[in-house]
Amino acid sequence: MSPSRRQALLSNIGEFQLIQSIARGFSSRGPRPLVGMGDDAAILSHPSQSHLVISTDLLIEDVHFSRGTASLYDIGYKAAVANLSDIAAMGATPTYILVAVALPSHLTFHDWKELYRGLSVPCKAHGVQLVGGDTSASRSSLFLAITILGKVKSNHGLTRSGAQEGEIIYVSGSLGNSVAGLAFLTRQASHGNTLPLRQPIKFLVGRHLRPTPRIALGQLLSSRRLASAALDLSDGLSGDLLHLCQQSRVGALIQEASLPTSPHLLAYASQMNVDPLPWALHGGEEYELLFTVPPKHQRRLELAVKRLRIPVTAIGVITPRRSGLRIKHQDGTTQKLLPQSYVHFSD
Amino acid sequence: MSPSRRQALLSNIGEFQLIQSIARGFSSRGPRPLVGMGDDAAILSHPSQSHLVISTDLLIEDVHFSRGTASLYDIGYKAAVANLSDIAAMGATPTYILVAVALPSHLTFHDWKELYRGLSVPCKAHGVQLVGGDTSASRSSLFLAITILGKVKSNHGLTRSGAQEGEIIYVSGSLGNSVAGLAFLTRQASHGNTLPLRQPIKFLVGRHLRPTPRIALGQLLSSRRLASAALDLSDGLSGDLLHLCQQSRVGALIQEASLPTSPHLLAYASQMNVDPLPWALHGGEEYELLFTVPPKHQRRLELAVKRLRIPVTAIGVITPRRSGLRIKHQDGTTQKLLPQSYVHFSD
Repeated sequence: MSPSRRQALLSNIGEFQLIQSIARGFSSRGPRPLVGMGDDAAILSHPSQSHLVISTDLLIEDVHFSRGTASLYDIGYKAAVANLSDIAAMGATPTYILVAVALPSHLTFHDWKELYRGLSVPCKAHGVQLVGGDTSASRSSLFLAITILGKVKSNHGLTRSGAQEGEIIYVSGSLGNSVAGLAFLTRQASHGNTLPLRQPIKFLVGRHLRPTPRIALGQLLSSRRLASAALDLSDGLSGDLLHLCQQSRVGALIQEASLPTSPHLLAYASQMNVDPLPWALHGGEEYELLFTVPPKHQRRLELAVKRLRIPVTAIGVITPRRSGLRIKHQDGTTQKLLPQSYVHFSD
Repeated sequence: MSPSRRQALLSNIGEFQLIQSIARGFSSRGPRPLVGMGDDAAILSHPSQSHLVISTDLLIEDVHFSRGTASLYDIGYKAAVANLSDIAAMGATPTYILVAVALPSHLTFHDWKELYRGLSVPCKAHGVQLVGGDTSASRSSLFLAITILGKVKSNHGLTRSGAQEGEIIYVSGSLGNSVAGLAFLTRQASHGNTLPLRQPIKFLVGRHLRPTPRIALGQLLSSRRLASAALDLSDGLSGDLLHLCQQSRVGALIQEASLPTSPHLLAYASQMNVDPLPWALHGGEEYELLFTVPPKHQRRLELAVKRLRIPVTAIGVITPRRSGLRIKHQDGTTQKLLPQSYVHFSD
């Protein structure tokens, strides 16, 4: 198809037709919006006894994702998960989503549908309805801005600021998989290798492209008041632990030996002859939950997650603020833990 | 200042510092968020007996605005008004705003502050608090995605779909000022003329850069159930009337002689030797309200707006759907009214 023909495809589709064709495909569970897509704004009912939870995330081509290592379906899928994960981190239940997209004119209607298909899959799985958005042309790159709404029982929301000295630091799932998957994809994109993926790689790439928002865990932690603070791992353990400690005005000591890593990560690191520790410590986009638990709730927590089959691991303790962030290595030495998150504006 | 030095300015400011410095400046009226900026999401209480109103808008450089004809303060100001206007069109009261911004790296911290200063002024005037957002680098142009929240008494929200045959079509303010102001600014930018503006121009440019969201009018229409349908004029009268008619499944007949135009618009059109009618009919970004009123409520409406000193004008009537959109000209002839809104993807 010639570039001009492709462009015509999106040019000929008016904004209203676009809107109508996307409202389908998302969840239709839960209370329907009183007014949904297509008016100046959506009108929603909000349950009494609940607080409203809301978050907005930007996703920008060549800053947050690259079309060299992710399809439009992948980009949509992960954008939805990143937002669902923010709701999970508050211990809330996601309800509605609004999607604003600026599309470069070389994208086709098929590309656009793939983006929304990717967005709809995790939303549908968690009962999230699409209730609004905006679509525009972009003169340059693909740009996504997603707003997600949720609800949480009044005064049960989890924040980053509640951690106290002596509490246990937990993380869900295993660490470093997403960044290792990305390392493989980036290598593959530059080498042009498209061989079928073997199991360790398949798992790591899967964790990078199809992360799981920890909705059920967040709900458990908030509804039973098991955690004192929580956030999701989007910047990497070291960076996000710093956020939690800064906002709670505490320090932390984590144990290298306790960090949960998958056998797939260890196999790939060994194959590539690299140390897996930096991946586990600093790798972003995990969308696991990092949370703190008062010792008196530890047994209740561990029983509850076992029943729900949610993997969680105790990785350290909250210390006084003056101790800062530290890591105890396997050789018994203790060092300062320096965050190496991806920082915007740094490049 | 060298480009690299400028870049360094924004590069050295971390996301957290950015967040903290912007929460100030917006309104602090109304219920404070339970959790505001800086966590994974905001937590808000929502009043019972009210429905939640929410809208997301994209604003993209060289699509929705040009830095040649608007400063960053102007861009922020108008972005806030466009969103406040969506809430006004629902008859709701705006409450909270979330702002996602992608900044090209050549912008300075001063630019960034100017953008937020522009955003904060109309928000503060209407009691709107900043409760969330996201900030990122952009590899290309400036992108803004704004989400605004509001509240409206349950089942009192105004939509586009309630207009019925025989009702009177009203518009607030006067038409065509914004597009005429833009025409002047565009001309000025290409001619490099920076002479002081004379009164007609000053008014038109003011309407383009500092439009007024019709919050009080929207609230009046919804709280007293005076209007059957409403929307705001963002695409221009012809385009937005089409939206209203399509969603209400009706037609409309408007009277050219009734269209409200300002003396400033007529003076500028005469000076430029152009017909002001296309500006009034098709000019976008007016942020006036277009609404329909059942004849039995007409007297109550006119008394109420007089008391509040809100200018509104009856410009036509709702007709059967099969009649489509028509305009009766001053010479007595009636023609089809063809929308000439700005259409995304068309260029």
